[in-house]
Amino acid sequence: MPQQSPLDVPEGDPFGPHNLPYGVFSTAADDRRRVGVRIGGFVLDAGAAAAALGSPFAGLLGQASLNPLLGAGHTAWRDVRRALTAWVTDPGHRPAVEPHLVPLDEVTLHLPYEVADYVDFYASEHHATNVGKMFRPDGDALTPNWKHLPIGYHGRSGTIVVSGTDVVRPSGQRKAPTDPAPVFGPSVKLDIEAEVGFVVGTPSQLGRPVALGDFEEHVFGLFLLNDWSARDIQAWEYVPLGPFLGKSFATSVSAWVTPLEALDAARVAPPARDFPLQPYLDDSDFDRPGGFDLRITVSINGQEVAQPPFATMYWTAAQQLAHMTVNGASLRTGDVFGSGTVSGPEVGQRGSLLELTWNGRDAIELTDGKRTFLEDGDTVTLTAWAPGPDGTRVGLGEVTGRIVGSR
Amino acid sequence: MPQQSPLDVPEGDPFGPHNLPYGVFSTAADDRRRVGVRIGGFVLDAGAAAAALGSPFAGLLGQASLNPLLGAGHTAWRDVRRALTAWVTDPGHRPAVEPHLVPLDEVTLHLPYEVADYVDFYASEHHATNVGKMFRPDGDALTPNWKHLPIGYHGRSGTIVVSGTDVVRPSGQRKAPTDPAPVFGPSVKLDIEAEVGFVVGTPSQLGRPVALGDFEEHVFGLFLLNDWSARDIQAWEYVPLGPFLGKSFATSVSAWVTPLEALDAARVAPPARDFPLQPYLDDSDFDRPGGFDLRITVSINGQEVAQPPFATMYWTAAQQLAHMTVNGASLRTGDVFGSGTVSGPEVGQRGSLLELTWNGRDAIELTDGKRTFLEDGDTVTLTAWAPGPDGTRVGLGEVTGRIVGSR
Repeated sequence: MPQQSPLDVPEGDPFGPHNLPYGVFSTAADDRRRVGVRIGGFVLDAGAAAAALGSPFAGLLGQASLNPLLGAGHTAWRDVRRALTAWVTDPGHRPAVEPHLVPLDEVTLHLPYEVADYVDFYASEHHATNVGKMFRPDGDALTPNWKHLPIGYHGRSGTIVVSGTDVVRPSGQRKAPTDPAPVFGPSVKLDIEAEVGFVVGTPSQLGRPVALGDFEEHVFGLFLLNDWSARDIQAWEYVPLGPFLGKSFATSVSAWVTPLEALDAARVAPPARDFPLQPYLDDSDFDRPGGFDLRITVSINGQEVAQPPFATMYWTAAQQLAHMTVNGASLRTGDVFGSGTVSGPEVGQRGSLLELTWNGRDAIELTDGKRTFLEDGDTVTLTAWAPGPDGTRVGLGEVTGRIVGSR
Repeated sequence: MPQQSPLDVPEGDPFGPHNLPYGVFSTAADDRRRVGVRIGGFVLDAGAAAAALGSPFAGLLGQASLNPLLGAGHTAWRDVRRALTAWVTDPGHRPAVEPHLVPLDEVTLHLPYEVADYVDFYASEHHATNVGKMFRPDGDALTPNWKHLPIGYHGRSGTIVVSGTDVVRPSGQRKAPTDPAPVFGPSVKLDIEAEVGFVVGTPSQLGRPVALGDFEEHVFGLFLLNDWSARDIQAWEYVPLGPFLGKSFATSVSAWVTPLEALDAARVAPPARDFPLQPYLDDSDFDRPGGFDLRITVSINGQEVAQPPFATMYWTAAQQLAHMTVNGASLRTGDVFGSGTVSGPEVGQRGSLLELTWNGRDAIELTDGKRTFLEDGDTVTLTAWAPGPDGTRVGLGEVTGRIVGSR
């Protein structure tokens, strides 16, 4: 019986040749950072394989970051993906490809791109409604602008970290309504936000908006994102200019970027719109639906606490991109934008502890005790999958991080 | 009579050897970007001069951006400045230095650093009070947090442009209280914000706050910054997550960065504090005062409209840096932070048209007509100077930009 090849990925594996997400890895034996493509339980050293095969993409793939590939544009993304698909599926390529496969448990994964600007949106109606009820109990849950434009703000690019990086509990000022003056100390309401992130490849010119229909020209792929949030710091600081230190201490992203092309079968229509949209946001006559059916799971210390459905998001990533640039703001390769917390209509679909515990009122039960917000030592993991072609699943990998005590 | 040297800078010139700001330039004859140091009406090609003199700083200065110098740290900044001072003042160096001087009107000036993250603060009590009165007339002008922490938010790094870059009037959604629904179109309330920017040189570690007393270790210098603002877009979008498209279309910065060392004589104490500060913000026992006495002038089409005094800012740049990192957020070389609009107590000291015209109610008179907000074709210029040693003035140069119509 012939030895099985690592390229014989078992049927049903969410990292089969229909997926092929990109990352950046190194190994103990070779600490150079280099582009890797995940296939089954292995990572293909894509630049080395391209060189061995005499591929014209050896230059784009033989890099320490995904940015050169991201900047190469939509046609290159398609052609590189076609080549990779052939390398991992065509038996004739196996002798050249197999030597460049590294078992997943032997690699160290790095932040796969250099982040330019980072924008975070607020696109789940269920999340925004829950937060509005808690933080502004005397007014309407949604602000008057919410269904007219995708609310967003800029976050801190320099503290985006790759999955697996420990998160130091932030300190800061907080002031409960009953406190006579603010107090300083480690956050006592450290939370998560389960989100999906998108990374821009093709830049745009200053002064030139990007049209809704040009989304696939500019955006390379998506990944899971945990927008760690210190609710007590955020509540005291955020009026009038928005979240700042309550968010800027860390944002964790997956090590793997799934190209949009792998998610064609996951496209779904967003929810019905309650108001007519400005033309630059109106996707009602688009053939390709703007939503993605991504099924997210949130776990704390290995125990599932929520299953947020990305398909319920009110604003699509294409609408977010069109909005972000409608004032003429330019895009750069490596720009990242987050969807905002993904929360569905059901209690078990909420993507933050703020919502799951109703701001600490209703503790959730874990096998190791109750939780309102995160404790030191807690590990939070987001995973997700999407429907792929022919009944397959496209795995989005995971984003994980452990809380360590304030220094 | 011997020919006068360009290095014989006239007495009283705000760009004498006591100043020596850094920039990046090219010329028609040589389009390589390179580090320049302004002296009088000339720009010294610093890398070329260093090479001609056999200086060990030829590597740091022979670059297309200031980032390598910024990243070299406080001791290097001091030593490079000492060397430059000797080159432009010691007659023995003239034969080697003079060939590397280019008249200012022959250079093109570029964005002098690669911006990492951009944070904008809100540190003028007069500005925040004026804005609060206009936007929240039914509440207190200052939010309860304002005197306890320097309010700030992240802006868009990728749309920071160098002085002289045209600014395209942004389009976006706006909704007057009387409008039944939002409308879309070019901003009709395009404004300026006269600010001072600071650029970080020395990075810091994730999870490690930067102490108030370490400001000079991390911050290289300062410059003028115009935070262009579309007030109508901002008013409709900014609740609850802060300014986004009302700001992100462009932020203009001076081409020259003045090193903090040139501003020792401009240090002044900030205003008396109305509340006790948390220890990480408390500068009351610091020997060196945290404020800077910078005298700013705002002009539209060459006509002065305001003279905002930076010495009146409530929060110092050192407090802003300490606050920005107290949650463990790390700094990168090239991080920029803006002071927020500089407005003094007098009407003629207000750093925005929003305040100067009281949100359009009181037009200001220019020789070419009345203004409430900016019209297409208007050119806005900020200039400033600071007291230097021995009665000199330290010129901060200018930041200028012209409004061009929406595309």
